[in-house]
Amino acid sequence: MDISDVKRVTIAGCGTEGSQISSMVAYKGFETTVWLRSEASVERAKPRLQAVRRQILAALDAWKADRSQYCRGLSDDRDLTDEEIDQLKEQAGERLLHIRLVTDMDQAFGDADVVIECINEDPDQKRDFYERLSSHLPERTLLLTDSSTFLPSTFADSTGRPDRYMTLHFANQIWRNNLTELMRHDRTSDESFRLAEQFSHAIGMVPLKLNKEQPGYILNTLLIPWFKAALYLVATGVTDPATVDLCWELDTGATPDQTPFRKIDKVGLPLALKIISMQPGADDPTSPAGQMVSLLKGYVDEGKTGIAVGEGFYRYDADGNVVK
Amino acid sequence: MDISDVKRVTIAGCGTEGSQISSMVAYKGFETTVWLRSEASVERAKPRLQAVRRQILAALDAWKADRSQYCRGLSDDRDLTDEEIDQLKEQAGERLLHIRLVTDMDQAFGDADVVIECINEDPDQKRDFYERLSSHLPERTLLLTDSSTFLPSTFADSTGRPDRYMTLHFANQIWRNNLTELMRHDRTSDESFRLAEQFSHAIGMVPLKLNKEQPGYILNTLLIPWFKAALYLVATGVTDPATVDLCWELDTGATPDQTPFRKIDKVGLPLALKIISMQPGADDPTSPAGQMVSLLKGYVDEGKTGIAVGEGFYRYDADGNVVK
Repeated sequence: MDISDVKRVTIAGCGTEGSQISSMVAYKGFETTVWLRSEASVERAKPRLQAVRRQILAALDAWKADRSQYCRGLSDDRDLTDEEIDQLKEQAGERLLHIRLVTDMDQAFGDADVVIECINEDPDQKRDFYERLSSHLPERTLLLTDSSTFLPSTFADSTGRPDRYMTLHFANQIWRNNLTELMRHDRTSDESFRLAEQFSHAIGMVPLKLNKEQPGYILNTLLIPWFKAALYLVATGVTDPATVDLCWELDTGATPDQTPFRKIDKVGLPLALKIISMQPGADDPTSPAGQMVSLLKGYVDEGKTGIAVGEGFYRYDADGNVVK
Repeated sequence: MDISDVKRVTIAGCGTEGSQISSMVAYKGFETTVWLRSEASVERAKPRLQAVRRQILAALDAWKADRSQYCRGLSDDRDLTDEEIDQLKEQAGERLLHIRLVTDMDQAFGDADVVIECINEDPDQKRDFYERLSSHLPERTLLLTDSSTFLPSTFADSTGRPDRYMTLHFANQIWRNNLTELMRHDRTSDESFRLAEQFSHAIGMVPLKLNKEQPGYILNTLLIPWFKAALYLVATGVTDPATVDLCWELDTGATPDQTPFRKIDKVGLPLALKIISMQPGADDPTSPAGQMVSLLKGYVDEGKTGIAVGEGFYRYDADGNVVK
C-alpha cells in the first residue's frame, strides 16, 4: 500500500491525544472516523473535538494577524497570503465538523486504511482492544499506536499483524509541535515503516524514525537526563534554578525559555515528579533522587505545578512571560 | 577587601585559558602580570598573548561591522556607537601590549590583590606551586583556581589560606562565552566568595555561583548526561545524529546549532571520547558505553574531530555552516 491509497483513517479513542490527532487527520483531508467504546464516550468526545477545532481555527487567525505565529503543522508553506489562510480556515472549519464518531467496530474499522490507537495507557485494555479489532480490520490496514509508555512488541502478537503494526508517537498541540516519533519493533515490515513515514508527512507531521525499540523514544531519552541533572544541582544545594538556566542560556545560546527549569515548568512538575519517583533511590530522602523528589513535591504540594497554572519554578503572567 | 581595592592581578600560567584570562583582565583595565615558570615559558607565552590580542581586536572590528556580532565580554553595552567601539579598540590594543611576563615569584605575586592559577592540570604541580606561592603572597590576596578537574578542597591546605581560596572556572573564548563558574569549598569565606563575584563582573564575566563543590560544575553536570543520551541513541542503533538533533530542535525550539551533536562537534569529539571512556562499562565493547566509545573512536580515528577541523558528526564549510 502506498500513501496515495490511504483515504480513510480511524482513530481509536478521543482523549487529549486522540482528539488532536483525529482533528489533524481531518484537517489534512482524510475521511476521519473516531471509534469510541460507548455512547457515553461519544458524548464526552464531542466537546473535546469542538475545543480542538476552536484552537486550530484560532491558530490560523493568530498566524494571519502575526506571521511569527505560524504553526508548522497547519501548512508546509509559512508564507501564505491572507486570502490563502482564509481559505485554509474555511476548509478546516468544514472538515473538522465532519469527523465521524461511531461505536460499532465494523463501521469504524471495516474499511480503514490506517488505524491509530489512542486508548487508555492500560495494557489489559490495549490487549483486549487489539484482539477484538483484528477480526474487523482489512488485511491491508496499517495499525499504529500512540502509546507513550508501552513498546510495540508488547502488543504485536495481540494485533495479529505484527508486520503492519508499530508506534507513531505524537506530542501535544500537534499543529504547533508537529514532531512524531516512528518506532518499529523487530517484526515491523519495511513497507509499513515507509508508509507510516509518508502518512506522517501527509498529516503535517515531521517523522523522526527509530529503527528499534527505545523506551522514552528520542525526545524523552534526551530530556529526562537533562531534567535530572538540573534538578540534582538544585535539590542537593549546589545552586538555584535561575543560575542553572542562565548557565545553559549563556553556554549554548538557547533563549531563556529553552532552559531546563523553564522546560520543566512547561511539561509540568507533576510529570517530572512522576519520572523522578521511578528513579533508583527515590524512596530514600537522603539520596540525590530522594532530594529531587522532595524538591518537586514541595512545589507540587503548594500548587506550583508549572506554567499552565501560572507558577512552577518561576512565576508567569497571563502571556506566559516570567514575572521577576 | 572590596573590589575597589583590586588593582593588581596576577595569572599563573599562560596556556589557552591563562592567555585568554590575562588578556581579559588587562582589557578591563587591571594591572596584569603573568607568572611563568621559566624564560622558555615566557617565550612560548608571547605568541599566545599576541594571538589572543588579535582575536579580541578582530571581535571588536566584527562587532563594529555587524552589530549581531556583539560579544558580551567586550562591553556591558551592546549598543555602542562606531566611535565608542573604535575607542574601545584603541584602548584594548594598548592595554593588551602591557601584560607583564615574569618568572620571579616575588615580582609576580608580592603585591597582587587577586591571583588566578591556570597551571597544568597536574595535582603534584599544583600542590607544589601553592606551597611555594604561600610565602610570596600578601595576607589579603584572593587566590582563585581555574582548574576544571580538581575540586578546591583538594588544595585548600596547600595554599595556606583556605578561606581566601576557591574556584573561578572559565569557558573558552571568554570575551564571547563570558560565563564563569564560582565554586566555594566548605572553608571559603563569604567575603572571598563575594569578592570573586564582584571581580567576575569587573572583568566582563557573568558569575554563576556554586554554593558547594560539584565535580563538572553546573555546565558539565548538564551537558554530559545530555551528550551521553544523544550518543547512546546513535551508538546503539536507535537512530542517527541528524534525527536526534532535529528532535531537540522541533521540541525545544532550539536553533539547529544548539542541538546535541552540533554541540559535540563544537566541544570536539576527542573530549567527548575522553569523557565517555571514563563511564562504567566503557571497556566492554558490548555495553552501551563501549558502543559509544566505538562510535566516537571511529570518527576520531578518521580525523573527524569536530567543527574546528571542518568535520565531526557533520561537515562544515569555512564559515562553520553545515554542508548537506
